[in-house]
Amino acid sequence: MRGAVMHAPGDVRVEERGEPRIVEPTDAILRMSATCICGSDLWPYRGVDALDGPTPMGHEYAGIVEEVGSEVTTIKPGQFVIGSFFASDNTCEICRAGYQSSCVHRVGIGTEGSQAERLRVPLADGTLVATPGVPADDLVPSLLAASDVLGTGWFGAVAAEAGPGKTVAVVGDGAVGLHGVLAAKQLGAERIIAMSRHASRQQLAREYGATDIVEERGDDGVAAIKELTNGLGAHSVIEAVGTQESMMQAIRATRPGGHVGYVGVTHGDLPGDQLFESATHLHGGPAPVRRFLPELLGLIADRTVDPGRVFDLTLPLEQAAEGYAAMDERRAIKALLTP
Amino acid sequence: MRGAVMHAPGDVRVEERGEPRIVEPTDAILRMSATCICGSDLWPYRGVDALDGPTPMGHEYAGIVEEVGSEVTTIKPGQFVIGSFFASDNTCEICRAGYQSSCVHRVGIGTEGSQAERLRVPLADGTLVATPGVPADDLVPSLLAASDVLGTGWFGAVAAEAGPGKTVAVVGDGAVGLHGVLAAKQLGAERIIAMSRHASRQQLAREYGATDIVEERGDDGVAAIKELTNGLGAHSVIEAVGTQESMMQAIRATRPGGHVGYVGVTHGDLPGDQLFESATHLHGGPAPVRRFLPELLGLIADRTVDPGRVFDLTLPLEQAAEGYAAMDERRAIKALLTP
Repeated sequence: MRGAVMHAPGDVRVEERGEPRIVEPTDAILRMSATCICGSDLWPYRGVDALDGPTPMGHEYAGIVEEVGSEVTTIKPGQFVIGSFFASDNTCEICRAGYQSSCVHRVGIGTEGSQAERLRVPLADGTLVATPGVPADDLVPSLLAASDVLGTGWFGAVAAEAGPGKTVAVVGDGAVGLHGVLAAKQLGAERIIAMSRHASRQQLAREYGATDIVEERGDDGVAAIKELTNGLGAHSVIEAVGTQESMMQAIRATRPGGHVGYVGVTHGDLPGDQLFESATHLHGGPAPVRRFLPELLGLIADRTVDPGRVFDLTLPLEQAAEGYAAMDERRAIKALLTP
Repeated sequence: MRGAVMHAPGDVRVEERGEPRIVEPTDAILRMSATCICGSDLWPYRGVDALDGPTPMGHEYAGIVEEVGSEVTTIKPGQFVIGSFFASDNTCEICRAGYQSSCVHRVGIGTEGSQAERLRVPLADGTLVATPGVPADDLVPSLLAASDVLGTGWFGAVAAEAGPGKTVAVVGDGAVGLHGVLAAKQLGAERIIAMSRHASRQQLAREYGATDIVEERGDDGVAAIKELTNGLGAHSVIEAVGTQESMMQAIRATRPGGHVGYVGVTHGDLPGDQLFESATHLHGGPAPVRRFLPELLGLIADRTVDPGRVFDLTLPLEQAAEGYAAMDERRAIKALLTP
């Protein structure tokens, strides 16, 4: 089959890869309906994260089950399914507490590489959630978004305790940040401040529920948030970038006792004394998307939310390299790939 | 009046200091019944935190109100009162949310120096809590402990979400850590693991409610906690030391989705990637002791808890230097000073 492989920073090629096969009796094989490129795929693309040789890429997926292993009992061939970037058994104590991305048996989907025609998904019963039937074509982008960026933005909002009466600020205007806005709105936040300096992203943020836009960053961005909140800072801040600077911007924009939900993969160190003085709550990490999938698929099916709008570029899988370039150059928020 | 002044690392002297006077109409002047030396006073004593010239020391206090400013309405001369290390108005939005240590009008008591015969307390109505009458002498150490170490340990346990069904680990066997054990017990924790390698502290930890003792530190300490928790880590970990090492020990001993309550003044940087991967909740900072004072004074008055037992050395104020030395050399957990 064809699949995307990153050979070096800036060098993504779609080439022949081996057909995925059932390895464990708990595996399923999917035929991809759609896949996409993640903001986190840009870390190695930009050389920030090291590559260990040619690497199959992609960890977001939605598709049709083609085959299941002998121990798979609830997932069936023919079903349309969505899963998260970590396979999880959904039965261990950590999963049952809602932290499936830290499942004691977790397997990273990234090692398989979902930017391909087919994908092996381990722990299929625990990992995959099926839609009631095969969904309408126009719902597929939104269902694909649930696989990572919507689920991650949603977790950021939950971790930041966004809710009624709260002022929520969102650091980062990529797909995850925009979905953080969407989630904060759905969770009932009173005021939602999107931090963005790109007109098209500001526009989508407003449509997703942002009530205010702050264009400043760093110290000025923190000052702008404080000015909007009686000098106190936001109750809830979603961090959806993952740099040291964005993380400190998020912490400093949060009032004492407030909540930071951080879902950008955190690079760099955090100064302990500043963290201590902030008196904030910090929660984040790899989003346990599986926790939210049933609810999110319902909101998508009844068209309450339209997260697929973050895909402002759709390309055939063969042109994956152009999708990476467009996202790297911020010409696109997020690129969907059709196998 | 006489008061302790730190002139340099290792150099604490009790000397004549000016009498405190009402400066703001919201001030009160206390005659100290008891004061004490804090673990955090050892940071400058050991040269870890810089001193900016000779510095009056101390921020813990319990005593009798001698005089109040013209705008003080609820606190009266003659009352026995306890307050926290930050004066707070207890009326601003941050105070009302329970974060009095980050009050928008907060004033550090440390700048006045409570290791003295008398003390000026700003924002007296917001800061001080009076006992119903003058307490029995044997309750004074426990009431003094509420001023910081009990309130701080209690906040650590609350921040770590200690409670029924939870396994709580406590990093640090100083007074705050021991009170973290006491608080976890009072909050209903099922299992409490004290990390300590000092026999007398282990003994007090057990009497305060610890069910297990772990003597190992660092990687071995983390492994020991995991071994006691089916490989998962504790639900709740209280960090009561404040070094980079102890903070990472706490984070790594916590299961994904679990809670770290950190109340040691955090020195050093935290690696963002390890924090991210931990998927824990982090909450801490300067403890909002004022939030807990009414409840804690009640538990002390009815002798449900006996936090004053952490004072294993009592000295006249004039011998403050010996108190610092004893704590620095770990000959004493905590030294009480009688003016």
